Amino acid sequence: MAAGATARAGGRRPGPTTTREAILEAARLLFAARGYDGTTIRGIAGAAGVDPALVHHFFGSKDELFLTVLQVPETVLSQVPALLAGDLEGAGERLTRFFLGLFESPETSAAMLTTLRSAVAQEQAARVLRETITARLFAAVRDLLPDRPELRMTLAMAHLNGLAIGRYVLAVPPLSAMDQDEVVAWVGPAVQRYLTGPSPS
Amino acid sequence: MAAGATARAGGRRPGPTTTREAILEAARLLFAARGYDGTTIRGIAGAAGVDPALVHHFFGSKDELFLTVLQVPETVLSQVPALLAGDLEGAGERLTRFFLGLFESPETSAAMLTTLRSAVAQEQAARVLRETITARLFAAVRDLLPDRPELRMTLAMAHLNGLAIGRYVLAVPPLSAMDQDEVVAWVGPAVQRYLTGPSPS
Repeated sequence: MAAGATARAGGRRPGPTTTREAILEAARLLFAARGYDGTTIRGIAGAAGVDPALVHHFFGSKDELFLTVLQVPETVLSQVPALLAGDLEGAGERLTRFFLGLFESPETSAAMLTTLRSAVAQEQAARVLRETITARLFAAVRDLLPDRPELRMTLAMAHLNGLAIGRYVLAVPPLSAMDQDEVVAWVGPAVQRYLTGPSPS
Repeated sequence: MAAGATARAGGRRPGPTTTREAILEAARLLFAARGYDGTTIRGIAGAAGVDPALVHHFFGSKDELFLTVLQVPETVLSQVPALLAGDLEGAGERLTRFFLGLFESPETSAAMLTTLRSAVAQEQAARVLRETITARLFAAVRDLLPDRPELRMTLAMAHLNGLAIGRYVLAVPPLSAMDQDEVVAWVGPAVQRYLTGPSPS
């Protein structure tokens, strides 16, 4: 750890911020190349040229580092409650537009695609995402949605994930060629129904 | 090719049916282990102990073999038009129940999960599935659905894919624990709206 803590002194060795960035960059590359299951803290430390303890110091566990690399918690989890708060009537449209925006913005699109691919193709990644993201999403929406808020949020997110796969991963022509407003006009009402429509039966 | 064509003569060497089965089994294992992108006709032939020409003889191209392994064309493509024909009003519910059934039946669930995982995580597999399955699905529904039939079918399938990922891959509790009837009651109307609801705009 001393290497990281004293790195600024020499003026040439990477300082704490740079070390943190080097670890993040190594993690980004390894998670993308080998997936969650094939990546270890030791491997990331080796690629970044630091001691594994330093990786834990900056990022905690492998799960936490994975989520940091994906940038998902910050962008998605922090904004969803605000999207749902207030006028629930427009929430389906707002959530759909926000989610499409994450895939279409250069800053977040790579992380969103990695999340989607990891979640679907890798068992351990699926576990991490299920346990962390859904738990935090559920807690965030519990008091904002009517009866069965967790099921409503799960159905809305399941729909939006499928939409993202069709539009950005499979890139099926009628869906990938439409502009964002048109997609929102089709999908927003379905998401709205999940969020606030009457429970069936 | 002679090995396959004359195999019955010896009485002990595998006959054409068995050879075909051996190739299929090798393909199934290799596609599952290495994915579409990492699997070659030559590798499949080697694993099955036959000449690569025999693989082409029985199954055509790698794309065709991949689709045969996934059993998708036969099960899905042949039944969707029948599901949509006749009373379109119940089509959303019928399509949702049929799709969930494919993931819950022991005969088709492995193939459906492989399809989903390959489509999302592997670029070449995504291309094969996009070009073949969607083209055949589109042709099948073109005369059965109202305006913009291809977009309607794409939205319905995108939603159902996302549902399958949430229920069977991520296995998010509220969705994975529900019984099939309850899922159909929530999702059927959304699929129905895509198939027959008014176009937005």
